[in-house]
Amino acid sequence: MAIDFKQDILAPVAADFAAMDKFINEGISSKVALVMSVSKHVVEAGGKRMRPIMCLLAAQACGENDLTQTQRLAAVIEMLHTATLVHDDVVDESNLRRGRPTANATWNNQTAVLVGDFLIARSFDLLVDLNNMTLLKEFSTGTCEIAEGEVLQLQAQHQPDTTEETYLSIIHGKTSRLFQLATEGAAILVGKPEYRQALQQYAGHFGNAFQIIDDILDYTSDAETLGKNIGDDLMEGKPTLPLISALSKTSGTDHEIIRKSIATGGLTELDDVIRIVQNSGALDYCRLRAQQETQLAIDALAILPESIARQGLYNLAMLALDRIQ
Amino acid sequence: MAIDFKQDILAPVAADFAAMDKFINEGISSKVALVMSVSKHVVEAGGKRMRPIMCLLAAQACGENDLTQTQRLAAVIEMLHTATLVHDDVVDESNLRRGRPTANATWNNQTAVLVGDFLIARSFDLLVDLNNMTLLKEFSTGTCEIAEGEVLQLQAQHQPDTTEETYLSIIHGKTSRLFQLATEGAAILVGKPEYRQALQQYAGHFGNAFQIIDDILDYTSDAETLGKNIGDDLMEGKPTLPLISALSKTSGTDHEIIRKSIATGGLTELDDVIRIVQNSGALDYCRLRAQQETQLAIDALAILPESIARQGLYNLAMLALDRIQ
Repeated sequence: MAIDFKQDILAPVAADFAAMDKFINEGISSKVALVMSVSKHVVEAGGKRMRPIMCLLAAQACGENDLTQTQRLAAVIEMLHTATLVHDDVVDESNLRRGRPTANATWNNQTAVLVGDFLIARSFDLLVDLNNMTLLKEFSTGTCEIAEGEVLQLQAQHQPDTTEETYLSIIHGKTSRLFQLATEGAAILVGKPEYRQALQQYAGHFGNAFQIIDDILDYTSDAETLGKNIGDDLMEGKPTLPLISALSKTSGTDHEIIRKSIATGGLTELDDVIRIVQNSGALDYCRLRAQQETQLAIDALAILPESIARQGLYNLAMLALDRIQ
Repeated sequence: MAIDFKQDILAPVAADFAAMDKFINEGISSKVALVMSVSKHVVEAGGKRMRPIMCLLAAQACGENDLTQTQRLAAVIEMLHTATLVHDDVVDESNLRRGRPTANATWNNQTAVLVGDFLIARSFDLLVDLNNMTLLKEFSTGTCEIAEGEVLQLQAQHQPDTTEETYLSIIHGKTSRLFQLATEGAAILVGKPEYRQALQQYAGHFGNAFQIIDDILDYTSDAETLGKNIGDDLMEGKPTLPLISALSKTSGTDHEIIRKSIATGGLTELDDVIRIVQNSGALDYCRLRAQQETQLAIDALAILPESIARQGLYNLAMLALDRIQ
């Protein structure tokens, strides 16, 4: 039976999830009108809020029943995520995110850069209120790695020689690291250090799977299901796993088409690239890697006590995989 | 006799100032090559490093003799300052800062945004290592106010109705708040809470004076002495105190020229604007305000015990004032 997001993932923490909104709203409050309206715009454009749900589920899976403090942490996670999206959209010159105009498109790059800075600062400000030095160190170090991952991605743009290893470093920073902060952070906050490693492993591997799946969908999906256009990554010359894998599986003309597409970006060769990515077995390899990472994520959950929250984390990883089945 | 920067300000903390470099270098170390080279570029483009010197002087003025920990705080202050400059240059589309190409000009906006994010994150990371929750709270709140000030400045751009009160809020965020973190932060770190308020007052008023002086120089100085071009603020339609004051002191054509110049930006009316700012008494008013703020800054130092470090803070404020005498 298909996994249902509300019933099989959100349900155990639904009340806390709703209560969390209060802290997000507190987080974006500002005396400066422009800060308020931009923050509101970008926070409301949020999707399923998967990261804060992960955070709440992780705390409950650690055996914590009172998630009041975790609600605050979950809000911080979402704000930090939003801040990175705002800056990402400036960097990628994106006009749309999930079908809504981005901050840089609605206002301008300047506003988006500065309000992104505000959101980063506010995230730390709310985090400091949780009064937990271990948590703060984890977040400050993690946030550095996230920024480094974004720069690494920029550095790899238009580079056909990017290795799978570099790709993994990039997605660790741009996706998996924040997943880890959400789940391992919950273990730290509720005082269950014995579960830190398991949750870090879960989130790290799930994050990798999630990003690989996202990168597969860029060559197989359409705007309606993904909220972005097919070929977005190709357009920007981003050497994601489908292309890296296609390079390793091809030679001759096909190989050169992929190399050139990464080097130049743009969509003139999109049809050819999609054909090569599909026929070379590159997408099969990506699907296999996504499955492997999901399995590792799920395996890591084993040391946590059985609970509906743990099941929720399991379901979340399985649901992501459904997108490429 | 004229104040000498090295002898009358830097001297008491010269050894600690030199030692601080190690922590700045640690701060910008990264596995990602592009992060390293950009960070190095922008940190080396630093000026006199007035903020970290202020921080070291403040700790010593509190009676602390061992400034090892304060060196780390001073490095954080400089990194945070650098991070804001990197993003400011993106926002202002500046190509030069202190005669050197900016990060956005040398690389591109994308790189500058992301490396700026890294520097913010690293600043917090190094700050967390100082293991002081009061300090962290002060910094996280202060950093929010700094970002808000920057957004407020953006919001006020091209707005001729900007009041002096709004201007003061802007310069509090863009300049004075970090001065406060540097000095009040030092009092927190060395465990002298009794001097927090005095140092906060000193830095707040000195910051205001410093920025007003900077804004005066935009209408009186030249590129050689200032490292920026005359009329930079006017170019961008920034309603700084000289223009706000000129509006309050003029009517008729002169008044309209200033209003229009703020609204449109650009330098077509530069000569007229300079004439009006000078003849209307606006610059005299700005000088008076800078003197008043400097006096308030100096007065605040009175409760600190007499020392060469306190004298250094005094001299720093007086030296800034020299620039408009």
